[in-house]
Amino acid sequence: MKIKRALISLYDKTNIIDLASFLIQQQIKILSTGNTYKVLSDAGIKTQEVSDYTQFPEILGGRVKTLHPKIHGGILCDREKHKKEIQDLEIEPIDLLITNLYPFWETVNSGSSEEQIIEQIDIGGVALIRAAAKNFHFTSVISSIQDYEGLKTEMIENNNGTTLGYRKHLATKAFALTAYYDSNICSWFLSQNKNNELPEFFALYGHKAQELRYGENPHQKAAFYSNQFTEYPLEKIHGKELSYNNIVDIESALNIISEFEEPAAVIIKHNNPCGAAVGNNALEAYEKALLCDEISSFGGIVALNRGIDLKLAGRLSEIFLEVIIAPSIDDEALKTLQRKKNLRVIIHRSLQQNAKYQVKNVVGGFLVQESNNHTIKAEEMSQVTENAATEKEKEDLIFAWKICKHVKSNAIVIAKDGCAIGIGAGQTSRIDSVDIAVKKAGEKCKGAVLASDAFFPFPDSIVESTKHGIKAVIQPGGSLKDQDVIAAANENKIAMFFIGIRGFFH
Amino acid sequence: MKIKRALISLYDKTNIIDLASFLIQQQIKILSTGNTYKVLSDAGIKTQEVSDYTQFPEILGGRVKTLHPKIHGGILCDREKHKKEIQDLEIEPIDLLITNLYPFWETVNSGSSEEQIIEQIDIGGVALIRAAAKNFHFTSVISSIQDYEGLKTEMIENNNGTTLGYRKHLATKAFALTAYYDSNICSWFLSQNKNNELPEFFALYGHKAQELRYGENPHQKAAFYSNQFTEYPLEKIHGKELSYNNIVDIESALNIISEFEEPAAVIIKHNNPCGAAVGNNALEAYEKALLCDEISSFGGIVALNRGIDLKLAGRLSEIFLEVIIAPSIDDEALKTLQRKKNLRVIIHRSLQQNAKYQVKNVVGGFLVQESNNHTIKAEEMSQVTENAATEKEKEDLIFAWKICKHVKSNAIVIAKDGCAIGIGAGQTSRIDSVDIAVKKAGEKCKGAVLASDAFFPFPDSIVESTKHGIKAVIQPGGSLKDQDVIAAANENKIAMFFIGIRGFFH
Repeated sequence: MKIKRALISLYDKTNIIDLASFLIQQQIKILSTGNTYKVLSDAGIKTQEVSDYTQFPEILGGRVKTLHPKIHGGILCDREKHKKEIQDLEIEPIDLLITNLYPFWETVNSGSSEEQIIEQIDIGGVALIRAAAKNFHFTSVISSIQDYEGLKTEMIENNNGTTLGYRKHLATKAFALTAYYDSNICSWFLSQNKNNELPEFFALYGHKAQELRYGENPHQKAAFYSNQFTEYPLEKIHGKELSYNNIVDIESALNIISEFEEPAAVIIKHNNPCGAAVGNNALEAYEKALLCDEISSFGGIVALNRGIDLKLAGRLSEIFLEVIIAPSIDDEALKTLQRKKNLRVIIHRSLQQNAKYQVKNVVGGFLVQESNNHTIKAEEMSQVTENAATEKEKEDLIFAWKICKHVKSNAIVIAKDGCAIGIGAGQTSRIDSVDIAVKKAGEKCKGAVLASDAFFPFPDSIVESTKHGIKAVIQPGGSLKDQDVIAAANENKIAMFFIGIRGFFH
Repeated sequence: MKIKRALISLYDKTNIIDLASFLIQQQIKILSTGNTYKVLSDAGIKTQEVSDYTQFPEILGGRVKTLHPKIHGGILCDREKHKKEIQDLEIEPIDLLITNLYPFWETVNSGSSEEQIIEQIDIGGVALIRAAAKNFHFTSVISSIQDYEGLKTEMIENNNGTTLGYRKHLATKAFALTAYYDSNICSWFLSQNKNNELPEFFALYGHKAQELRYGENPHQKAAFYSNQFTEYPLEKIHGKELSYNNIVDIESALNIISEFEEPAAVIIKHNNPCGAAVGNNALEAYEKALLCDEISSFGGIVALNRGIDLKLAGRLSEIFLEVIIAPSIDDEALKTLQRKKNLRVIIHRSLQQNAKYQVKNVVGGFLVQESNNHTIKAEEMSQVTENAATEKEKEDLIFAWKICKHVKSNAIVIAKDGCAIGIGAGQTSRIDSVDIAVKKAGEKCKGAVLASDAFFPFPDSIVESTKHGIKAVIQPGGSLKDQDVIAAANENKIAMFFIGIRGFFH
């Protein structure tokens, strides 16, 4: 398809002088809309104004410029089938469309008024893009400034034309853009609705920002898609590319450390924590976290909510870790970690990025749920036993619960002195998770506390854990056998608290 | 906003006579496009044709009908600010748009040609809907036949007008529709691309098909969103609504039984299998599956790949199950299960519904990976030990692997006679998963086989499992210590096979 006539109608006029000059050199006639016409004219590029061609003015302050049959007929016509029809109506075929859209999402993010936001819903530009993309057998649609250079190359290689394959590629990008653009508009409309219900429509939409080497396993292709809504909050400052499993583990790690105001460290392996602790500083927190299960920590991911200094960097260097993630790092500390070739170091700029919703695709569609952003407070703990807990035990119970809600269900976390010492994860029977946790805790179990992500169906877990020296338990409550479970706690002279909030996580 | 003039332009004309008659009764003037005009005229409803109003014919076989400034100016004008401008141009404000779109996705699904599919990309209708939705301060947009009755009610309640809240609600639906429509078009374009790469853009888009009572936990709101691309393959024929956790577990259950051609049963709890088996028939498979961990099976989800007869229904009734899912069920069998008030019975129409991709939202965007649809074949097993396995052991190894890839990592599955007897799930250290599996298997471990979802980092797991009588092992291989692991297998006179495929699942 040789290009003879182009329509240029732009919001962002970056680099257009260069491209338009190129088109003029190739003897291509250019139509343009008001402001674009002005910019091109000022640069000495001769084009015809759309209103001159249609004999209809731009109206409503620019709301209606190109929504005219002489424009859309020129874009949508079949050059053979409709030849006579367009000649009779003096419609000239448009072979190339160059446009970009009003910055709707940027306007929303800049905190503009509702009126300003609505004005930035592009109607004419979207209609042009969609029409040109539909008619890709004849029309090339450039909907992104990034494609200007590619267009020039394509035209030079094809004697001022474009290939069908290239036009179809442009059409695909065009519909991706309009789908994305309207899903943003829809999101904004939904966000205006303050009724706190899950939205009637839900879109997860993104562009491939990073091809990953593979997915959970080497035979599965994978990629990271950016949704562009927010600045990407992670920055890799050392090491090779993140793997799919790294990204999944980082997500879990960030969710855990964002539970804590005080210095905290967590070590993740296979998407479960194998160590977690709070301390007076990041070094202390990390050293305590490591105590939980040093064998599992090998090859793990460490996340911190405080910066890394030289001393901590030295300590972190002592075992093989896949990823270290922290809010900041000293220069000297970074130099130490940079010596580890297989380690990635990531800076997280903000921990306030917890997703509002979690999405899981299933047969026939997908599930959306609010993230479990409930943060436990001491006053939510309701003592159900005769025995009370000490203040220190209460602190440890809250700490244990904060970890427990991020451990795969059924989850049991045993803690002492702000440190997880036994984590029982992913069992189909609760007592099995208790067994794993007490086994991991070993002798340290004496005087420790225990959190359970859901109620105990039977008293057996209480009997078993108190045998090993557990002194206090935190759990949601709500079992048919709650009274038996409380009786077992009383019998064994421990304290137990119900919080009425469940912490399932699968 | 009192409605004085409406534009009706429809593909699907269902129920429009009734609505248009209502509008005429309310003295509302109607503009309509070609075919809609004909249908309304034939029913004796007087309307003005759009081409008569614009003084421009419908062209290109209907591709350009309403893309005219007199139409879009009428939809997009501010009734105050642009009053003089539209009067001068003889543009009449359009207060109500009634339209629906060409059935793009239905055309794709009906197996039409590329030419037919492209023709069904609606340009004019989308432009109208978007324009009217943008100008919701003045214009009401009805983009679905389902909203006809609601419009009538709204107009009757508001003296032939609509409220701003109602118009904004309609605008939200309109942009949801156009986003959805274009994401379908984009998906079709992407599906044309046979290069097998992950697409440059990815959309997960759906409408809320079912509000769920709650998500993973009662304090988390949740809903199921349908993507409409395919017929929903699950049908509930008995019991109360599925919960979020039910749906997640059903997904896992279906993925497991779709691994098998022969009769198979699986029992899921907390998104991990706690029992799985193949048998000569569904009853035998279920009874064997139950043997693995009957305690955990309490409250579980059972999936079968064969129909349920009366005898099996009786057996299934003996313990408390949350969900039973099968391809079919006899009438008498259903009657038996209907006696269980807390049980849901689901029919799955097809097991060929495995999603091509899995989506996981993470900070800044989302991950997409190909589903792990690799199915193991006997010829992929490479014997690395001096000892060989019997045919029966080989069958059990394949069976164990098929289950293992669906168990949360680190995963170990011990099997005998087509039956899982010990499942070790979700541990941060592989040897811990081995310990759990052999403990669950108990005495039955003697002469059984073992599958591991990833390589053994050390020989310890081999030493431990052979102590309990494991006779053959299947695993991906690829550890730095493979030679030590093989040596341990040889020393203990067992057979081991590498398959070169990893089965991580988190």
